[in-house]
Amino acid sequence: MYKEDTIAAISTPHGTGGVGIIRISGDKAFEIAEKIFKGNRDFKLIRSHTINYGKIVNPENGAVLDEVLLSKMEKPKTFTREDVVEINCHGGMVVLKNILELCIKQGARLAEPGEFTKRAFLNGRIDLSQAEAVIDLINSKTNESSKAAINQLEGKLSQKIKDARRKLIELLAHIEVTVDYPEHDIEEITGQMIYKEIGEIKQKLCDIIKGFEKGRIIREGIDAVIIGKPNVGKSSLLNELSGKSKAIVTDIPGTTRDIIEEYININGIPLRIIDTAGIRETEDVVEKIGVERTHKAINDADLIIMMIDAKRGMDEEDNKILTMLGDKKLIILINKTDIVDEDQICKIESLLAGKKYIKTSMKEGTGINELESTITELFVQGEVNINEEVLLTNIRHKNLIDMAVSSIEKAMDAIENFMTLDLVSIDITDAADYLGQITGESVSEDVMHEIFSRFCLGK
Amino acid sequence: MYKEDTIAAISTPHGTGGVGIIRISGDKAFEIAEKIFKGNRDFKLIRSHTINYGKIVNPENGAVLDEVLLSKMEKPKTFTREDVVEINCHGGMVVLKNILELCIKQGARLAEPGEFTKRAFLNGRIDLSQAEAVIDLINSKTNESSKAAINQLEGKLSQKIKDARRKLIELLAHIEVTVDYPEHDIEEITGQMIYKEIGEIKQKLCDIIKGFEKGRIIREGIDAVIIGKPNVGKSSLLNELSGKSKAIVTDIPGTTRDIIEEYININGIPLRIIDTAGIRETEDVVEKIGVERTHKAINDADLIIMMIDAKRGMDEEDNKILTMLGDKKLIILINKTDIVDEDQICKIESLLAGKKYIKTSMKEGTGINELESTITELFVQGEVNINEEVLLTNIRHKNLIDMAVSSIEKAMDAIENFMTLDLVSIDITDAADYLGQITGESVSEDVMHEIFSRFCLGK
Repeated sequence: MYKEDTIAAISTPHGTGGVGIIRISGDKAFEIAEKIFKGNRDFKLIRSHTINYGKIVNPENGAVLDEVLLSKMEKPKTFTREDVVEINCHGGMVVLKNILELCIKQGARLAEPGEFTKRAFLNGRIDLSQAEAVIDLINSKTNESSKAAINQLEGKLSQKIKDARRKLIELLAHIEVTVDYPEHDIEEITGQMIYKEIGEIKQKLCDIIKGFEKGRIIREGIDAVIIGKPNVGKSSLLNELSGKSKAIVTDIPGTTRDIIEEYININGIPLRIIDTAGIRETEDVVEKIGVERTHKAINDADLIIMMIDAKRGMDEEDNKILTMLGDKKLIILINKTDIVDEDQICKIESLLAGKKYIKTSMKEGTGINELESTITELFVQGEVNINEEVLLTNIRHKNLIDMAVSSIEKAMDAIENFMTLDLVSIDITDAADYLGQITGESVSEDVMHEIFSRFCLGK
Repeated sequence: MYKEDTIAAISTPHGTGGVGIIRISGDKAFEIAEKIFKGNRDFKLIRSHTINYGKIVNPENGAVLDEVLLSKMEKPKTFTREDVVEINCHGGMVVLKNILELCIKQGARLAEPGEFTKRAFLNGRIDLSQAEAVIDLINSKTNESSKAAINQLEGKLSQKIKDARRKLIELLAHIEVTVDYPEHDIEEITGQMIYKEIGEIKQKLCDIIKGFEKGRIIREGIDAVIIGKPNVGKSSLLNELSGKSKAIVTDIPGTTRDIIEEYININGIPLRIIDTAGIRETEDVVEKIGVERTHKAINDADLIIMMIDAKRGMDEEDNKILTMLGDKKLIILINKTDIVDEDQICKIESLLAGKKYIKTSMKEGTGINELESTITELFVQGEVNINEEVLLTNIRHKNLIDMAVSSIEKAMDAIENFMTLDLVSIDITDAADYLGQITGESVSEDVMHEIFSRFCLGK
């Protein structure tokens, strides 16, 4: 059991709301709560995992800070596996701050970001990839990314990684026995067996990696930029996409509009339009942000949607932009096709030098479905259906699996070249170690620090 | 017992945080929770007021939405006096939205703002002034306003109002007996007695009203505008005031800076500087917002702080502004007194036509204490100490007490003019009715609607 001082923090989002929660975790959690909580019965007599009405009172001057519901939860069946107290109070900032300060005055320390989850990991309640899923879940922007995080939180990824690692470790034990009691024939047979088994493990790891690009996109979304001349229809496109989108967070009253507008849900992929505000306001993003900044926006984007006015056709500037794009993922829309004939479109097509395009008319709403399916195709090659699939969404995990795979490949090479098994075992040990860093069975303090510092306060 | 359908809402502030809460209240709360919560035991066997670990699962497709802690609370010992379920989940917007939608799909209705508190009132757990204190507490911006709301929430104001109302009703009963069994002598004695008693009640009500202006200021704060020419030192003044202020919410990491900067705490009075951003950015609020808008800012403000440059002296424009102010509360600062001699200050003083001023030097930090005590003196006439005091902070309450007082005065007039007691009793009935509207013992649906619509969602 990992032991440390008692920590406290506000666990609900900052802002004004109906309910706020102060969480306290550690050996002194009950001692602190006892000093500041006045309920109907002696704090010591309160049973674990019950909710209790009472008041938070400053023991120094008897001032009542709030009426609250207090939850007492004895270890080990708690989020951190330590004693935990949650104070459910009125959600005003002053109230929350005063109660938190009182907790700190009575002996708690202000928790660092992610420190509750870190303790849950250090005390063995969840593994590291599950801890990372917690923050992914909190930050998720679509149902799909939320679902991927839940799967990871439930340990589905961990299970696969742990299985692979366990098999590697069993093989290492097997090798050790063989090396310690060497008989020529057995080693050869063992070599072949190990080759086959690590080959299978490698295959499974490669399958997990395959899902990564898809996972990353589902979690982080695509940064897209819409470029094109004034009045080509950029803001209409944006409206079409937003309007059709299965609203991400729009249907909760009170949700900040900014967040909504930034992400458009394209078949489960969160699409973020860079400089959306600019488009809505001026209808002229290129002009507004200038050539230099267009360059930067294009560089930062995962996807460029370029709109060409069918009536006005291509000109020098459009060409300049096209050459600027390099190998960026690009979708060209020829818009306003409702007001031109096929000849005009052919003329533009010839200038596009074989580049594919979609004919659209924002006015008539045509071409939008094709645009959406093209985006999906470009980024996830197929359905975004993650009900059963275990999706790798975390770049740290991806890198570690990559390294494990290449260690296994080295081991396989060694066997092919009739190296001795104790040499082979070095690579297999490395592979097992890399996998252990995903679940946290082997991980450095630095990595851990970096992971938990991305968390929000109070989690 | 007030009965209605089952309601659900997100009770934590919107935004991303460690923990979010969905609250469900009503007859079907347990039925809904049972359908979507998979814990370690049968939902029906879960004891009231306990916290239970489990998962929220969509019963239609088995999809896991989150790992949660679920609190089951059986009526009547709950916030609303109905069956209540609180789902404590990961604080991501998508997770919260999905769980809320699932609750609604299973038969709950999205709660209106304040509807949980409204039910607590309708079911008799708290009276109306206590319900109003809930929202004041949530919105409070200083320790003092928070404390005033807590006192009101604890029923200290209600108690005084209820006492007064009860005495009026006792007198009405007395009058009824006297009127029904009239004997000349008794009625006269009764008249004098009633005169004395309602006089005492009136005095107590007047004492409560006295605290109102102070209460309102503590709750709502003062809107102040700092005016003066470019470079007179407006932003330095703002920095001095903010720097000295006992931070309102600054010491909680993660608190939005915007909120902090708007309110400066002057001896417990929240001071809001109008167009703060303007001052910080341009050092020239008058020029920036134009004469017309300066007019409006001045009109909206409770306090004008006018800064005069000691070196440059008063000019035509300063004079124009001074005449613009009418009877607004005004504090004149002569700034940069460190770089001029006394003669120069006398020259300015003569132009101020007897108006009081404070000599300041933002550079040397002088005059700030005097400014702060002048603000306090102007608005609360003395210490802001509300530990024991019951502070009237609500304009609705103030108006109703005013009306009760004037009804009592009418009754006293009637007795002085030897009117019959049944006439006197009409005014006393009115007074009792006004007081009843404060605590909600007599209140119309419209008033109630207006009160609760000011609440946030989920409370």
